[in-house]
Amino acid sequence: MSPEPTPAGPAPRLALATVCLSGTLQDKLAAAATAGFDGVEIFAPDLLADPAPPSEIGARCRDLGLSVDLYQPLRDIDSTDPDRFAANLRRADATFEVMAGLGADTVLVCSSVSPDAVADTDRLAGQLHTLAGRAHERGLRIAYEALAWGRHVGTWDASWDAVRTADHPALGLCLDSFHVLARGSDPAPVADVPGEKLFFLQLADARELSMDVLSWSRHHRLFPGQGGFDLPGFLAPVLAAGYTGPLSLEVFNDVFRQADPVRTAVDARRSLIALAEATARRAPGGAGTDPVATPAPALTGTAFVELTAGPELGRVLRALGFSRTGVHRTKQVERYEQGGARILVNAAGAANGDGAGGSAVAAIAVESADPVASARRAARLCAAPVPRVTGPGEAELAGVAAPDGTAVFLCRTADDGPGPAWPHDFVAVDEPPAAGTGITGIDHVGLTQPYDAFDEAVLFHRAVLGLDTVADGEFAAPFGLVRSRALADPDRRVRLALTVSVLRRGGWSPAVADPQYVALACDDVLATAAAAQAAGVPLLPVPANYHDDLAARLELPAATLAAYRGLGVLHERDAHGDYLQVCTELLGGRLFLALVQRTGAHDGHGWTDAPVRMAAHRRSRLARV
Amino acid sequence: MSPEPTPAGPAPRLALATVCLSGTLQDKLAAAATAGFDGVEIFAPDLLADPAPPSEIGARCRDLGLSVDLYQPLRDIDSTDPDRFAANLRRADATFEVMAGLGADTVLVCSSVSPDAVADTDRLAGQLHTLAGRAHERGLRIAYEALAWGRHVGTWDASWDAVRTADHPALGLCLDSFHVLARGSDPAPVADVPGEKLFFLQLADARELSMDVLSWSRHHRLFPGQGGFDLPGFLAPVLAAGYTGPLSLEVFNDVFRQADPVRTAVDARRSLIALAEATARRAPGGAGTDPVATPAPALTGTAFVELTAGPELGRVLRALGFSRTGVHRTKQVERYEQGGARILVNAAGAANGDGAGGSAVAAIAVESADPVASARRAARLCAAPVPRVTGPGEAELAGVAAPDGTAVFLCRTADDGPGPAWPHDFVAVDEPPAAGTGITGIDHVGLTQPYDAFDEAVLFHRAVLGLDTVADGEFAAPFGLVRSRALADPDRRVRLALTVSVLRRGGWSPAVADPQYVALACDDVLATAAAAQAAGVPLLPVPANYHDDLAARLELPAATLAAYRGLGVLHERDAHGDYLQVCTELLGGRLFLALVQRTGAHDGHGWTDAPVRMAAHRRSRLARV
Repeated sequence: MSPEPTPAGPAPRLALATVCLSGTLQDKLAAAATAGFDGVEIFAPDLLADPAPPSEIGARCRDLGLSVDLYQPLRDIDSTDPDRFAANLRRADATFEVMAGLGADTVLVCSSVSPDAVADTDRLAGQLHTLAGRAHERGLRIAYEALAWGRHVGTWDASWDAVRTADHPALGLCLDSFHVLARGSDPAPVADVPGEKLFFLQLADARELSMDVLSWSRHHRLFPGQGGFDLPGFLAPVLAAGYTGPLSLEVFNDVFRQADPVRTAVDARRSLIALAEATARRAPGGAGTDPVATPAPALTGTAFVELTAGPELGRVLRALGFSRTGVHRTKQVERYEQGGARILVNAAGAANGDGAGGSAVAAIAVESADPVASARRAARLCAAPVPRVTGPGEAELAGVAAPDGTAVFLCRTADDGPGPAWPHDFVAVDEPPAAGTGITGIDHVGLTQPYDAFDEAVLFHRAVLGLDTVADGEFAAPFGLVRSRALADPDRRVRLALTVSVLRRGGWSPAVADPQYVALACDDVLATAAAAQAAGVPLLPVPANYHDDLAARLELPAATLAAYRGLGVLHERDAHGDYLQVCTELLGGRLFLALVQRTGAHDGHGWTDAPVRMAAHRRSRLARV
Repeated sequence: MSPEPTPAGPAPRLALATVCLSGTLQDKLAAAATAGFDGVEIFAPDLLADPAPPSEIGARCRDLGLSVDLYQPLRDIDSTDPDRFAANLRRADATFEVMAGLGADTVLVCSSVSPDAVADTDRLAGQLHTLAGRAHERGLRIAYEALAWGRHVGTWDASWDAVRTADHPALGLCLDSFHVLARGSDPAPVADVPGEKLFFLQLADARELSMDVLSWSRHHRLFPGQGGFDLPGFLAPVLAAGYTGPLSLEVFNDVFRQADPVRTAVDARRSLIALAEATARRAPGGAGTDPVATPAPALTGTAFVELTAGPELGRVLRALGFSRTGVHRTKQVERYEQGGARILVNAAGAANGDGAGGSAVAAIAVESADPVASARRAARLCAAPVPRVTGPGEAELAGVAAPDGTAVFLCRTADDGPGPAWPHDFVAVDEPPAAGTGITGIDHVGLTQPYDAFDEAVLFHRAVLGLDTVADGEFAAPFGLVRSRALADPDRRVRLALTVSVLRRGGWSPAVADPQYVALACDDVLATAAAAQAAGVPLLPVPANYHDDLAARLELPAATLAAYRGLGVLHERDAHGDYLQVCTELLGGRLFLALVQRTGAHDGHGWTDAPVRMAAHRRSRLARV
């Protein structure tokens, strides 16, 4: 067991821009407070649409325990036209008035995108100096930021040139990770900027997308850890420079804009905690950012998957060669095992299952090298605990709810720690063990995510479990595009395959809703599937057209191809190896099982063939209705 | 009245690619047939996921009255590696086998994107010649297409170089409007290609978007008339060259991929009919494409808007200065008038209105210069007629259902045609006329569109009514991004403002659902709004913060600003003029009225201020609950 680490220094304050959230200003402030943020950035249009005067809004923030760390933005301030510049200063005065009411001392000034923007650095610096002087008189500060698409100032070092040249105590930089990293700028030299000139820091991640940077920025930003940017590599030099302000998120995202703001705010806060931790681990200078910087304990495998019982599940597991090895001491749960694969079947859940049959993934238990540290870490990362009744002498299973509602238990199967391990909760049954069909373990679990929770789920599993992205893509399914993301530990002992509709499904959605599956690993899928078929497992038929095409693409022996046709094998090949799978029919409304064989270093999850599988599942479901 | 035009030649055959539609192959073929298409392109992955052998699929198509005009695609055929090329030819043979089953004689071969693609034109032509020879032996043809992102062949003229050099009777070009127009290539020289070498034509429109061409092509294609490409300018030279094959749509679109395929197919067919017509009108050489090429009759104004009656509507119209001028002879409909604004209030609809109060836009009637020709045109463009009972002596109102369900009537108000005009359906009431408040007409109607029907609605109103796009954008509303598109006739006598959520709304959507409004024109909105307010019209309060910001941006006299605050004026200014509006509270669950004054040539629809208005409507609705 790891000792509770001791705090290493004051934690940075965490802030959230109102642009990250859906709703009116009132909704947004309440959500930020509920999630435990220390402060907010208030976006001007949110304030303009609110009926309360700024002083009342400021008071509301204080009542909620939120400071107003930034008011934003003041746009297109500098101008080559003196009259325009004078009008802009009057506009700034009105903004200062609002800030006084709010109790905000810093305003964000973006580099101008206007045709009359000032190109000459000295002239620009002069105008910024004038602006800063007016702010200073009121005890306010100007944080100047380079928009990536600014007319003349588009990089952080160009903004630093202007700020350094202006040389005014009330003028400093606002750094935005998106603008810096989207342009591929190196953040390392930020470490040389005097810390007191770094007035504000805005953090955002993003997927690598090929589109104009403005659309990318305004629609597809993500919270740190959800995209592909190196945020710890950005934050480290900022902290090394001596920045002491809040870590603040400014994330424009189409999905977050229409999702429950409380949920988004919790996701946001989790991202900052994980980022501070990752930064502290990587950069010695950043250690002070994270008082409890413990890496996620290593995962050593999937302990078990718990399924709610549909009418067919027990029979199918037995036909697949699983042995029923135990029943729970106090709960209506049966344990089935084969090789390293352990599946719990929970009869209590059946009543709450979906109307079409009940079987669904209720829980995933991962083997942690240190379950206590894993649980502590999960709690720190705002994971909601799963309430669980533990009977006398039973194992203390620490469980948290993933964003899709699946319970995630952090546990150990071996008897090498204090207290009983989870297998002790089961009483052995007096049944002869099944012969088995060659299933060796659980390869992965596939879970369709709720539309609004996909990026949240990615971050959750990366941060809480320490998994990382091994595949990120999308495919054209019969009823719409599907986004896919696979997560795994470095040794590929625990894998999760997450999918979501690219657009939220509407009225026309006759597909299987929100499918889930458990992929069972085997070394010879043809043998395992043949045994399963012989034992009466309902295998999913695959169209002959698919195998005809496969034969034209791969050189396969005729006997293999014949076996493929008879068993419904789907076969993907890439440069690293092969991925073969045989799926069962749906066991109820949404769950199926898959037999999976990997050869070489194939790291896929069957997504190339998923459209064929999805059409087949729909077809056989229709045939049974 | 215009005479029924006489057909000018055989109409081209209309085809649809299965990639345009959602569903399995079976869903897609049924939808294409239902919409009246002559043929289909079958996308290989659709076939691979279908359990029927190709011969059965071909028979199914014939039973549905569909020819299989193209099988697609055969990718990455040429190769610098002779072994790979030989393997590719074997793959092609398997494809030819499928085509024979289907009864398809043409296959699409895309320019290769593979690292081993052949760069040298002569060598590429040689390999294509070999491929064409094998196809020829089976009576099949190769249509070679340049993908915009092809490795070496990325433009239509590069593909033509290869085809010309290969010089094989079974090898010709497939032209795809997207690939040509997205790269900004000039399609005019296509007119010089021998017609018999143009084997196939794929049509797609798109909005102008700044993103990589591959993502643009795979997610955001539109049917002709929905985007910004000059499709008539593309089709004309193709027809001038002597192309006689089908006009076929190949549109990859994220929304269409998950929408009702029958509805999408009807939308698709409408787009081709309108395109053929527009091409015939513009290019003399293209006249044969359209047997009934009549332009949409000019629209001369909004005859009336019909609203279903909520409890407050009659009172509010009277307080707005409308006179009740008639009641319908046989229906529970009242007519209200002021200036050129006519509003019908239909009490029968109230019972069917939404639960929150009932008022909604039931119909829009536009004044057509030739209602009979307008109606004939609408029918030809697959518009669904609105069933309507006409009493003895009543006007024959030709009505069609717009994609959002609103009835659109094509009529005349003046008594200058055969039969009675619609005002004759009303019996005058013996009431003194109201004094009026200065309302002069109907400026526009604002309609939230169903999520799946936005692009369909744009095309519907462009094609059926002859309106065109005057604004196309999006804005950040409190509960998510909103896409906006304004349509108008050239003289701005009829305007429609369409909006839709950028992402389909989910569980968190506490905003007013699907708002609608009627914008009433006036020359002095301050005077009209003041009179309305005095008469008890519930005007929507606008936050003081908004007016404070307005004062900082525009130089407005203090008295004007005071009036703005008192009346809730929203004021937008651009280079062309000003747009002032005052909105009422919601009259029931979703409908409000707006008083609108335009100065100069302002062509907007209040979308800059829409977020403020939307937050205010939500607030006042919550206050009333």
